[in-house]
Amino acid sequence: MFVLSNPKRDFIVHRSEPLNAEPPLDRLRAGFVTRTEDFYVRSHGALPDLDAATHKVRMTGKVTRTLEFTVGELKDGFMPRTITAVLQCAGNRRADMQQVEKTTGDPWAPGAIGNAEWTGVPLVDVLRAAGASEEKDLHVAFEAMDVAENEGAEDGPFGVSIPMGKAMSGDVLLTWAMNGNPLKSEHGAPLRIIVPGYAGVRSAKWLGEIRVQDKPSDAFQQAKDYLLFPPDMRKETQDPARGTTIYEMPLNAAICEPAAGAELKAGRTEVRGYAIATDRAITRVDVSSDGGRQWRQATIEDHGSARWSWTLWHLTLDLPVGEHELVVRAWDAAGQTQPARPDDVWNFKGYLSAAWHRVRVTVA
Amino acid sequence: MFVLSNPKRDFIVHRSEPLNAEPPLDRLRAGFVTRTEDFYVRSHGALPDLDAATHKVRMTGKVTRTLEFTVGELKDGFMPRTITAVLQCAGNRRADMQQVEKTTGDPWAPGAIGNAEWTGVPLVDVLRAAGASEEKDLHVAFEAMDVAENEGAEDGPFGVSIPMGKAMSGDVLLTWAMNGNPLKSEHGAPLRIIVPGYAGVRSAKWLGEIRVQDKPSDAFQQAKDYLLFPPDMRKETQDPARGTTIYEMPLNAAICEPAAGAELKAGRTEVRGYAIATDRAITRVDVSSDGGRQWRQATIEDHGSARWSWTLWHLTLDLPVGEHELVVRAWDAAGQTQPARPDDVWNFKGYLSAAWHRVRVTVA
Repeated sequence: MFVLSNPKRDFIVHRSEPLNAEPPLDRLRAGFVTRTEDFYVRSHGALPDLDAATHKVRMTGKVTRTLEFTVGELKDGFMPRTITAVLQCAGNRRADMQQVEKTTGDPWAPGAIGNAEWTGVPLVDVLRAAGASEEKDLHVAFEAMDVAENEGAEDGPFGVSIPMGKAMSGDVLLTWAMNGNPLKSEHGAPLRIIVPGYAGVRSAKWLGEIRVQDKPSDAFQQAKDYLLFPPDMRKETQDPARGTTIYEMPLNAAICEPAAGAELKAGRTEVRGYAIATDRAITRVDVSSDGGRQWRQATIEDHGSARWSWTLWHLTLDLPVGEHELVVRAWDAAGQTQPARPDDVWNFKGYLSAAWHRVRVTVA
Repeated sequence: MFVLSNPKRDFIVHRSEPLNAEPPLDRLRAGFVTRTEDFYVRSHGALPDLDAATHKVRMTGKVTRTLEFTVGELKDGFMPRTITAVLQCAGNRRADMQQVEKTTGDPWAPGAIGNAEWTGVPLVDVLRAAGASEEKDLHVAFEAMDVAENEGAEDGPFGVSIPMGKAMSGDVLLTWAMNGNPLKSEHGAPLRIIVPGYAGVRSAKWLGEIRVQDKPSDAFQQAKDYLLFPPDMRKETQDPARGTTIYEMPLNAAICEPAAGAELKAGRTEVRGYAIATDRAITRVDVSSDGGRQWRQATIEDHGSARWSWTLWHLTLDLPVGEHELVVRAWDAAGQTQPARPDDVWNFKGYLSAAWHRVRVTVA
């Protein structure tokens, strides 16, 4: 069994082989930038053990010259950039959806998310160095060095892709460092891609090959797995043609403190959490202590311009003795808010679980 | 009382002074581009009667030279452009919200929306000709020639503003034609602004002055009226500081046919409607005939690249004899969907009414 680089006793391990684990929510909410040891890990197979000094990544496909480079060569050849960005698993908060009806996948709490500082070089710079075609309807595919356990299909290399427009944005990074230190093994050492604003699955780890091609990747993760299906579809009847590829993710919010089931003393309770909307500002966070009948507005914390980061919020409540259902819902700059019930977003794979987050607490 | 340029007997007139009217939904759904005579009219005061040949619009404020131009001079001086874009009133579908609790404003059905071809010149080109400062935190204010009836405040010129970033986008047009013909009086002749992707209120009609300034417009419409308030706020206690300025609008969808209350024959029923998400693609439209328990997917009609347009959809249902509650909800490219109940988005001004749209029909 793999051991986390910097394990903490209370990390929530859904599976150890392959490793899938998330931090307790109070640790997640400890700072605007998530500590590396508090960052969730989502892997689809055994973690590859690659030698950073010698491992070469190839850039192939619709390019005028194939490139091959180590991390060292990448650092030498291009101007580095650091971006603070959230990575979020498409299955974050799946546990709420599983209360409605069973889904495939691990029962992630709201901890399959984190906001880190990523250092690397813009993918666009390397694509241009390779003379890649920049036609809009192309895709950039990432093949990883891990062998993914593909549910209902043969094991195979983890693979995903992103549309060329996104790849050219300048914010997509070939990344070797997280929070100022070299990537740890479980986060994709020596080189991964970071695709701000997209579901974590597109940010392939342990990169082996980058390929410019005229269609999306045909690897299992891209073609069959990370799809949003309509509510009538089931595992047994799944038809990829009826699914939508998950790239951007919906408006979401979670209460990180107090914890679900907490027993609190009467008096002031600080409610704290996060909210996120892909590429839109969070304009309001509503918190209820009566299951969603009445709402108050939380204070939104200001961390400056943070296009790809999350938004942290807090609110002090004075809760009387008894049981309370705390609820949070967020609003974005387009006046959009979240559906109330997980029933309204349920799908058999448990993706994009973004209904109001509810936490029951008892005040004694 | 003002008479519509091309009146049709069945236009729904909420108020005639000032004129506020919307088309029946089957006429709205007649085409991808909405006929001018089927386009909703939202006005805040008496319609100004301006002479297109002599009326001059001024560009002032943080510019190196003040401009003053007639429509003819604008046509002569700049390269025209045509954009197909939706205009949608922030109060569209307010009637649904009023079923929960009274709000201010007219009870718009889902017809306060339309998709037209707008011809004019990009605002950015005129701003540059005036040597306008392009600093990001500036605003471009529009003062109109109509005197608005401002609820709870003195009458005054209609005024709004948009952030400089939006003004510079190239898609914001100083517009003199709609669907290939000169603007009609009720749509802002001789010159209006069209701000694709923003609530209709920002697309000021009967333009008089365009001003580059360091803060949003302090006119009633900008500063006090078109704000999204939290659910606890009421007309009597309203505090603009707790509202959010409405620019972009949320994901929305409506059933246009059959009409609410329709009595249908048993057999095949064609359900048709629209969906819209600001600057995101509609990826799925779910239709239910049992109040939202089970869903089927509608066919999304392809009208090519249409960034600022709506998405039309249809689905054939085979409804048995009895009463049915038809429901629609849309999904966008970020996996976002709509809240189920108008209760969940209620605000005392009745803005951004974007819960699932429900239509009751009887099959005999």
